[in-house]
Amino acid sequence: MLTAPCKAQLWECNKTLIDVAQGRTPADVVIRHATLVNVCTHEVLPQTDIAIAEGRVAYLGLAPHTAEHCIGPDTQVIDAAGAYVAPGFLDGHMHVESSMVGVAEFARAVVPHGTVGVFYDPHECANVCGLDGVRQMALDATRVPLKAMLTTPSCVPAVPGFEDTGSAIGPDDAAKTMRWDSVVGLGEMMNYPGVLAADDHPLGEIDETLRRGYRVTGHYSVPEVDQGLNAYIDSGVSCCHESARPEDVIAKLRLGMYVQLREGSAWNNLATLAPAISGPDADPTLDTRHCCLVTDDDHPATIVHHGHLDQVLALAVSLGIDAVTAIQMVTINTASCFDLEADLGSIAPGKCADLVFLDDLTSFHVSLTMVDGDVVAKDGAALFSPEPFAYPAWMTHTMHLGERISAATFAIPAPEEAGASVRVRAMGMSAGSTLTRELHLDAPVRDGHIEADPTNDLLKVLVFERHHATGTHAAGFVHGFGIHGALAQTVAHDAHNLLVMGDNDADMALAATTLENCGGGEVAVADGHVLGLVELPVCGLMSQGSAAEVADQVSHMEQVWRDMGCTMNSPFMTLGLASLACIPELRLTDRGYVDCTTYRFVPLLVDEKDTAPDTIA
Amino acid sequence: MLTAPCKAQLWECNKTLIDVAQGRTPADVVIRHATLVNVCTHEVLPQTDIAIAEGRVAYLGLAPHTAEHCIGPDTQVIDAAGAYVAPGFLDGHMHVESSMVGVAEFARAVVPHGTVGVFYDPHECANVCGLDGVRQMALDATRVPLKAMLTTPSCVPAVPGFEDTGSAIGPDDAAKTMRWDSVVGLGEMMNYPGVLAADDHPLGEIDETLRRGYRVTGHYSVPEVDQGLNAYIDSGVSCCHESARPEDVIAKLRLGMYVQLREGSAWNNLATLAPAISGPDADPTLDTRHCCLVTDDDHPATIVHHGHLDQVLALAVSLGIDAVTAIQMVTINTASCFDLEADLGSIAPGKCADLVFLDDLTSFHVSLTMVDGDVVAKDGAALFSPEPFAYPAWMTHTMHLGERISAATFAIPAPEEAGASVRVRAMGMSAGSTLTRELHLDAPVRDGHIEADPTNDLLKVLVFERHHATGTHAAGFVHGFGIHGALAQTVAHDAHNLLVMGDNDADMALAATTLENCGGGEVAVADGHVLGLVELPVCGLMSQGSAAEVADQVSHMEQVWRDMGCTMNSPFMTLGLASLACIPELRLTDRGYVDCTTYRFVPLLVDEKDTAPDTIA
Repeated sequence: MLTAPCKAQLWECNKTLIDVAQGRTPADVVIRHATLVNVCTHEVLPQTDIAIAEGRVAYLGLAPHTAEHCIGPDTQVIDAAGAYVAPGFLDGHMHVESSMVGVAEFARAVVPHGTVGVFYDPHECANVCGLDGVRQMALDATRVPLKAMLTTPSCVPAVPGFEDTGSAIGPDDAAKTMRWDSVVGLGEMMNYPGVLAADDHPLGEIDETLRRGYRVTGHYSVPEVDQGLNAYIDSGVSCCHESARPEDVIAKLRLGMYVQLREGSAWNNLATLAPAISGPDADPTLDTRHCCLVTDDDHPATIVHHGHLDQVLALAVSLGIDAVTAIQMVTINTASCFDLEADLGSIAPGKCADLVFLDDLTSFHVSLTMVDGDVVAKDGAALFSPEPFAYPAWMTHTMHLGERISAATFAIPAPEEAGASVRVRAMGMSAGSTLTRELHLDAPVRDGHIEADPTNDLLKVLVFERHHATGTHAAGFVHGFGIHGALAQTVAHDAHNLLVMGDNDADMALAATTLENCGGGEVAVADGHVLGLVELPVCGLMSQGSAAEVADQVSHMEQVWRDMGCTMNSPFMTLGLASLACIPELRLTDRGYVDCTTYRFVPLLVDEKDTAPDTIA
Repeated sequence: MLTAPCKAQLWECNKTLIDVAQGRTPADVVIRHATLVNVCTHEVLPQTDIAIAEGRVAYLGLAPHTAEHCIGPDTQVIDAAGAYVAPGFLDGHMHVESSMVGVAEFARAVVPHGTVGVFYDPHECANVCGLDGVRQMALDATRVPLKAMLTTPSCVPAVPGFEDTGSAIGPDDAAKTMRWDSVVGLGEMMNYPGVLAADDHPLGEIDETLRRGYRVTGHYSVPEVDQGLNAYIDSGVSCCHESARPEDVIAKLRLGMYVQLREGSAWNNLATLAPAISGPDADPTLDTRHCCLVTDDDHPATIVHHGHLDQVLALAVSLGIDAVTAIQMVTINTASCFDLEADLGSIAPGKCADLVFLDDLTSFHVSLTMVDGDVVAKDGAALFSPEPFAYPAWMTHTMHLGERISAATFAIPAPEEAGASVRVRAMGMSAGSTLTRELHLDAPVRDGHIEADPTNDLLKVLVFERHHATGTHAAGFVHGFGIHGALAQTVAHDAHNLLVMGDNDADMALAATTLENCGGGEVAVADGHVLGLVELPVCGLMSQGSAAEVADQVSHMEQVWRDMGCTMNSPFMTLGLASLACIPELRLTDRGYVDCTTYRFVPLLVDEKDTAPDTIA
């Protein structure tokens, strides 16, 4: 049961609602002449009136009935004038930190786009500042109408033993959070190898969640959808947003999962996955009750310039998914996924009055958003504006490098016997994909050091531990970004250590020290000049400015990337996954290269026996 | 969260399931070559294997995958040989007492028909023996594999102030039961006038249920589906089985309710209601996720001779409802209605292994039933057979009449000024309907007494308080049964007082005393002879024999009814509603006639100003 994100619990206000429905007490708000999107019946019902009291729907007047009897002298009457009125949108899996602002600023950005609730997994913050940091985010959230429902980060570190993080979360910690008001489940269980091995740590967290009657959210990203997927679901994980192919969607649905079709800034899965539902070979009678649409990671620029779930809905419909079915995927289905259908996800008597006015069912342009019966956004603007959140100093000073960084720090010694080049492992990365490929490529050796080879788009990348000043760092190579200069960022999933990429050591050093000095963020450097900087002092992940301000900075940075030679869309988000060791195939953490298929460290240099691809496809 | 009706909670056994799915530990049971009815996706999937351990599905092998890797030397392998395998059926609203046997005997009767779980509201027992009696029923249930999930009786008495019962239940009592293992919600809230008036008693019970995170089941039987229905749902009631017209179904679905389409022995609503879904005017895209099929009240003869939810499914399909959609209405939809989808209602990894083998999707003939991974019924026979339940004496001696009954007790004095006849109120009753009509008919006066008029099918009916020996009783008339002689029964909803109907006082007296002496049940008498008797000594409602034995007795009794002139189907069940004052239009309780539209007592004799119908339509 949801304890926090409602103005009043139903048992606290049902007497009033009963009175309002029968005209004995006036409603607080009456919406007249709505074209109701009824997600319970999958219908569009013209001339519907909605009376609201205590933040909940008290009366739904379906034509020819009206809510005139609910109107008193102080009732706010809103004429929808035939506009579509749908339940407010719920994002079933996402990370607020990806927006690079805190929860309140995020809310100001997305609520005008119709998002009334998010199931957020603050595991970026948790990796840096632990559950204390998460609690601050939850505190920030209480100041805005967005229903920020927490799923406790389950994998901090994401891959224990392979990286160093600022904090760690275990079953006992998870158990404690299950009593927090804002917690409704467990965050994405990325440690599927641990689940498949029936390890105590992941199962302990899952069990504490199930025991509380909450749902466990998933992350199953491998194409094996038989024994492994069965075992993963056996654990108690009930939803998953990591599907790469239409057949993954079907397999997960058949095994009873809620499938969260993802369309985020950088992971644009929907066009690939939608055919499972709307493609020419799709079963037209396939039940979609377990399908949801989620964003996972949305960039500030995406939100500010394009929107949030509203634009995902528009895309879904453009891909042939029925409009009301698509709306169900961000309303009733999502509520049901978390057993919250009694309060959220539909416009019906007793439910929270969270709703949106839509111009049409193609663009899904939102003209008004209401949460708990209050108009909280209108014509694209949020009507709430809290003070900047006062983050404690331990969240805004998180750069703790254990070494003084200079150009020399970035030198990679070559083996003594090396000739003009050595064969190295490199991460092959491409836009729009969370996966990397393990490449085996030749890197030049000069003056006893292995160098980048920008002519072949082979760049150096180093990851520095930055939480506990241990001085741990490791080096590798990356292919796919095509820049000259250096880029550094502290948004480096999921440990969020300091990640530096470049084609020369001097620029890399300048990039690193620039971030060290400003508390983290992202920076671009070329030829000794800082070309762009996004300061993210909160955990090295979030700005204290508005989403629009950060979006401007990020847009500038993206222009810088393009000027530096990168053709990738959202390169910053793609680069930020170079260290994410829970997704195949090869990743670099502060401890070194991790083979994310077999879960073992692998060396930088390729052994002659290694058989991975040596060409760039 | 469901605490009792699973062999093991998922968090207690997920390690084993994970091992089984991956072939590291053998399964307890493997079903091979099933044609899976997948209620999550609405698909029928041939060549599916199902591996089971710890009572739960560990692995679902969808072709071309098989569960061969889960088979060990001790694994029980069942070859489904292509049979349809569907989730076991769940009855979302029913009263075990209507089967006239205890829960264990009921289970023996219905489990072979594929019913694996019932959401039962033991309000008949509660009216006689209170929550102590309910606890005994729950105790009986623990001895059989049927998942007997309790919804605490909410309306005991059904209509406070209008009848005398053996016990009463209030908000504090309801709150206590919410901590019982077997309780999953609140039983049907029949007191809709109280809900609409926002009375403390019904709302108190509802609030205690909502506070616990459980669902409140409904009973909204009036055709008003605007302000009243909105207000009723506002209270927190989330499902309803009392729909009389297709438009009631649509209205309730649109207002977010789960609609439980009822097909019981006597209340045959499905043929009337199915067109809302499958009729020529139905919206083919109507979402049916909130539709369930329930029995409410099934007679022992119905169960023994025709079946249970299996026959309801067959009827639904014959009425044009898609077979898989119909199965969803007794599986996943029902589980979802009670927020139990995580454990029940589908065949998927981690879910309870409750399933049925079906010969086809038209007759829905069940050849095997499995609960928690155990084969519990095969080829129509239950494979479990507990000892008769030892009911305490206070449950088997419940006939406490406060007066010595003789023929004189049944005399109804006429007013002194009466002529040859007086105009009386009579309950017009008809088979298959729970409603009565208020009729105004002429009754003959002889020797200063108002008499029955069997030639016009106008019979006398008296109701005697029988719980606390108060001697309270009241008299009225009934039309629709057409018998000569007398019938009496202690199954007289919901107070279950002693109800006696007949055309002469001597037979009525014999009928009454016969039941008094045997502890309750039903009896037919004519011309001084007992023609049929069904002894129901447990609360005056249930036999201690088997369902088959009681069915035989009831069948004999029905033959007796027909011999006595009654053409009604299940007349016993229809007569048993003559005192049910929570359903329109006119009912007789031990305190007198109740106008069940306005909720006031009305006199036997019709005033000249009264305007109700005086003809028999």
